Amino acid sequence: MRLGGNNYGKAETRLVLLRRGGERHDIVDLNVSVALAGDLADTHLVGDNARVLPTDTQKNTVYAFARSHGVDHIEAFGLALARHFVDSQPSIERARVSIESYGWRRLGPHSFSRAGDGVRTATVTYDGERAWVVSGVVDLVLLNSTGSEFTGFIRDEYTTLADAHDRILATAVRASWRHASDECDWSVSHSGALAALVDAFVGTHSLSLQQTLYAMGGAVLDARPEIVEVRLSLPNRHHFLVDLEPFGLDNPGQVFFAADRPYGLIEGSVLRDDAPPPGLAWDL
Amino acid sequence: MRLGGNNYGKAETRLVLLRRGGERHDIVDLNVSVALAGDLADTHLVGDNARVLPTDTQKNTVYAFARSHGVDHIEAFGLALARHFVDSQPSIERARVSIESYGWRRLGPHSFSRAGDGVRTATVTYDGERAWVVSGVVDLVLLNSTGSEFTGFIRDEYTTLADAHDRILATAVRASWRHASDECDWSVSHSGALAALVDAFVGTHSLSLQQTLYAMGGAVLDARPEIVEVRLSLPNRHHFLVDLEPFGLDNPGQVFFAADRPYGLIEGSVLRDDAPPPGLAWDL
Amino acid sequence: MRLGGNNYGKAETRLVLLRRGGERHDIVDLNVSVALAGDLADTHLVGDNARVLPTDTQKNTVYAFARSHGVDHIEAFGLALARHFVDSQPSIERARVSIESYGWRRLGPHSFSRAGDGVRTATVTYDGERAWVVSGVVDLVLLNSTGSEFTGFIRDEYTTLADAHDRILATAVRASWRHASDECDWSVSHSGALAALVDAFVGTHSLSLQQTLYAMGGAVLDARPEIVEVRLSLPNRHHFLVDLEPFGLDNPGQVFFAADRPYGLIEGSVLRDDAPPPGLAWDL
Amino acid sequence: MRLGGNNYGKAETRLVLLRRGGERHDIVDLNVSVALAGDLADTHLVGDNARVLPTDTQKNTVYAFARSHGVDHIEAFGLALARHFVDSQPSIERARVSIESYGWRRLGPHSFSRAGDGVRTATVTYDGERAWVVSGVVDLVLLNSTGSEFTGFIRDEYTTLADAHDRILATAVRASWRHASDECDWSVSHSGALAALVDAFVGTHSLSLQQTLYAMGGAVLDARPEIVEVRLSLPNRHHFLVDLEPFGLDNPGQVFFAADRPYGLIEGSVLRDDAPPPGLAWDL
Repeated sequence: MRLGGNNYGKAETRLVLLRRGGERHDIVDLNVSVALAGDLADTHLVGDNARVLPTDTQKNTVYAFARSHGVDHIEAFGLALARHFVDSQPSIERARVSIESYGWRRLGPHSFSRAGDGVRTATVTYDGERAWVVSGVVDLVLLNSTGSEFTGFIRDEYTTLADAHDRILATAVRASWRHASDECDWSVSHSGALAALVDAFVGTHSLSLQQTLYAMGGAVLDARPEIVEVRLSLPNRHHFLVDLEPFGLDNPGQVFFAADRPYGLIEGSVLRDDAPPPGLAWDL
Repeated sequence: MRLGGNNYGKAETRLVLLRRGGERHDIVDLNVSVALAGDLADTHLVGDNARVLPTDTQKNTVYAFARSHGVDHIEAFGLALARHFVDSQPSIERARVSIESYGWRRLGPHSFSRAGDGVRTATVTYDGERAWVVSGVVDLVLLNSTGSEFTGFIRDEYTTLADAHDRILATAVRASWRHASDECDWSVSHSGALAALVDAFVGTHSLSLQQTLYAMGGAVLDARPEIVEVRLSLPNRHHFLVDLEPFGLDNPGQVFFAADRPYGLIEGSVLRDDAPPPGLAWDL
Repeated sequence: MRLGGNNYGKAETRLVLLRRGGERHDIVDLNVSVALAGDLADTHLVGDNARVLPTDTQKNTVYAFARSHGVDHIEAFGLALARHFVDSQPSIERARVSIESYGWRRLGPHSFSRAGDGVRTATVTYDGERAWVVSGVVDLVLLNSTGSEFTGFIRDEYTTLADAHDRILATAVRASWRHASDECDWSVSHSGALAALVDAFVGTHSLSLQQTLYAMGGAVLDARPEIVEVRLSLPNRHHFLVDLEPFGLDNPGQVFFAADRPYGLIEGSVLRDDAPPPGLAWDL
Repeated sequence: MRLGGNNYGKAETRLVLLRRGGERHDIVDLNVSVALAGDLADTHLVGDNARVLPTDTQKNTVYAFARSHGVDHIEAFGLALARHFVDSQPSIERARVSIESYGWRRLGPHSFSRAGDGVRTATVTYDGERAWVVSGVVDLVLLNSTGSEFTGFIRDEYTTLADAHDRILATAVRASWRHASDECDWSVSHSGALAALVDAFVGTHSLSLQQTLYAMGGAVLDARPEIVEVRLSLPNRHHFLVDLEPFGLDNPGQVFFAADRPYGLIEGSVLRDDAPPPGLAWDL
């Protein structure tokens, strides 16, 4: 037998960084996960750790880099960390840094309220020669109360679903988009991509959640030339019309039961025809 | 032995209600829990259910009332439901309806994004004669990046904590406020109370989280004459300054570790001197 | 306005204690929450913390007591802590210590597997004169696949539920039982109470979940003379028979959909006729 | 731009199946997720659903197959479902069925207590020609209270970790193992693989969690010839010795703080030298 693919790292280091510019503070609130891969056979086979950079050290490095480099953009912060681990350690050949960034709304010069509408993400991978940057968002919950249909599908012996000509379409967006290069105005790019995603969800008369997915991915590519591929995972959060007839009431698209499980799950990728190969963008 | 206090009901009925006014829709997104108490000894002692209104019926009633009464305010919706259960069933002497209302931001005439900054709540209790209304908020996460101290506390043999002259103060507010009566402009009252809570958190130079708690409760009473008592449960979400000295770096209030557990938990009530007795407001 | 009831403390201190007796280790795995009440007006009103024992100190005390006193039983450990806080601090008049104890199955002399079937709990309250001890269990998930009915209930205009002559009865038990005194063989008492709860669930032909609840509480009182009151909170985890007729299949009580929400929630107390008043057992 | 990889399906269908053999019942409690891929461009590009088998139909099929085929082993149940979707629908080229199976301990002929120590899993993928079966376990929490070291690691400028000669090693095992074929005595195989995993965790004097991981994977391959690859994801649940010196107490490996985040995360694969290529076993 032999050792196959492997990696290790410190996951979910919670970092809050204050920038104290005179009266007015800024806050950065991150969850940083590091994964490293390389020449790690000895620790697996005989417990020789001479080539292992401890996960505790990785955590320390996250905090020290936040102080010494600052965190202007999570993509750049991830790049700095990933490059550090590979470039400073001969045994580490590839590094991935995954970051969640929690938003806060400003209430005052040094007061904030946690915003709950979506979490910004970045995943940076570096192999000693080049770097791949994937930006994204998770937990962005969107709902259209009309403008969604689902008809004309396959009917087999197990099909009981009726055609839906006007349904609620609701999802919690998990989206990731791959950049062409590792240099970018990350803030402009992210807000543009996010706006394109949301606008496409809002603006698409949906014949299927797949169609909405493709429209969302395509809108990002249309809006942002620096992005070459978008991957989306969209749960279909079902809202079922409640039957009120037994109580002598009609229900013309008004009262719904919001179900937890099961849910549909629609996943897909949209990419430019000339997108470069993904390399390690999606897999360490 | 004997049967002591008891109640039963349907918990967490998920209701989404659309109001379709021409082009523009409104959305109401609720989690409704019902608890009923009364002459229920027979079902406990011998399994005779002749006085039991099934929890399934309670769920149906929630949906039917949403259609027939609408949901203009969760307090009024809760009152209608609580009164119905007690007034229509001789065996039901007291009813409590607890509602969570999830906010959505408008993206278009019929498009919405789930807002994550706090959930509005209401708990209504009715005993056949009078009703008590408690409004509130949960999961409202607030943070001051300065203006918080904690000094001068007791030092005993187990104390290692140093005085803090400038710390991060962060909490997830759980607040409930009792109304003097069951008639009110619920929307105006709620937004006024919420603003008072937040403003007091932001505006209080805090010597302890207890002081902030009292200021928050007091601000609600100052702002809203119809409210007679405020109860607050404030976890102290600790942010620890990271020691960067081993890496040759200073850390003047910049880089923090946001801890999960343990956390402080500060709970208290602020009430008017002439607040009427709470009756069943807080306990069914 | 004035300050009403209040308390504060350190919540969810995670403590793992090893007892190293030669080759064979024992493990104690706890989640300890402390709440203190007393003469705390000054910290609320003016931020004077001279009477505040920091929650950080409370955490330290939990760890130090684990070392100096050991943890033979969580009830005794809670008593020692609660007494310490009140007896050592003039400003602290009442203390509550709530403990969750996670079980581990032994795999070897120093190897363990986390047991997931229920968490043992204890809540101890002390007011400087006497102490109240409540023991319990949470997250104990039980299911009877037959022997449960629900018939003969009220039918009103919103009732659509059919009589159920043979249904699945499933619940996640949350139970707490009050002891007559603060001295007891806690292990024998807990295992006896737990066995009585489970045996009553298994052995009761159930005409309602309320009947099962009363049987469970009564069985604890029958089995354990040192216990004077049992409080139970039993969610009714609905299992709905799936309609397979559209697919030409019968479904004689075989295939069920296990629903998440909504769920019934049945809560009640069973106590001895001569149970002493509860004092602070249930409320700090 | 163009459509890249995509799939869709119904996730988390909760199925409880009773087998009623006379007096004694058996219970099967599953969470079933289906993902289908194939000729789905039309629904993405123009919302034409003529090649889409609705996720609602997939759910119905899960329930109908549970009745008509039974669920003797989750691997076989997954195979039947996956084959059905691909073989019955020209547009569906690949199907994946992922199942979690929750364990219940028997309390009586028709009474059960939910077991919390690990969830059995299976993921079956079928492409119309061949099938891949991966079995596994998640949420199996294991702890060794001694016999674990971590020394001799890289020290760089960000390293503060001291050598550990005797630490607690705790993890929540997520393991998946790939079978050589789609025919097997699934129960014997699973219990054998699980026992090998646990025995290796218990029996390995660990110089690193990586070494334990490799030992666990290797033990499965040693024990079960029908298994050709094992993938493991092992969080390192840190237990930190509490410094009790400020309180005049020693702490010789007795009192620990169990931390939530951050945690180490060790991932790796162990496979036979002659393992066949994985095909679609790990990726749809």
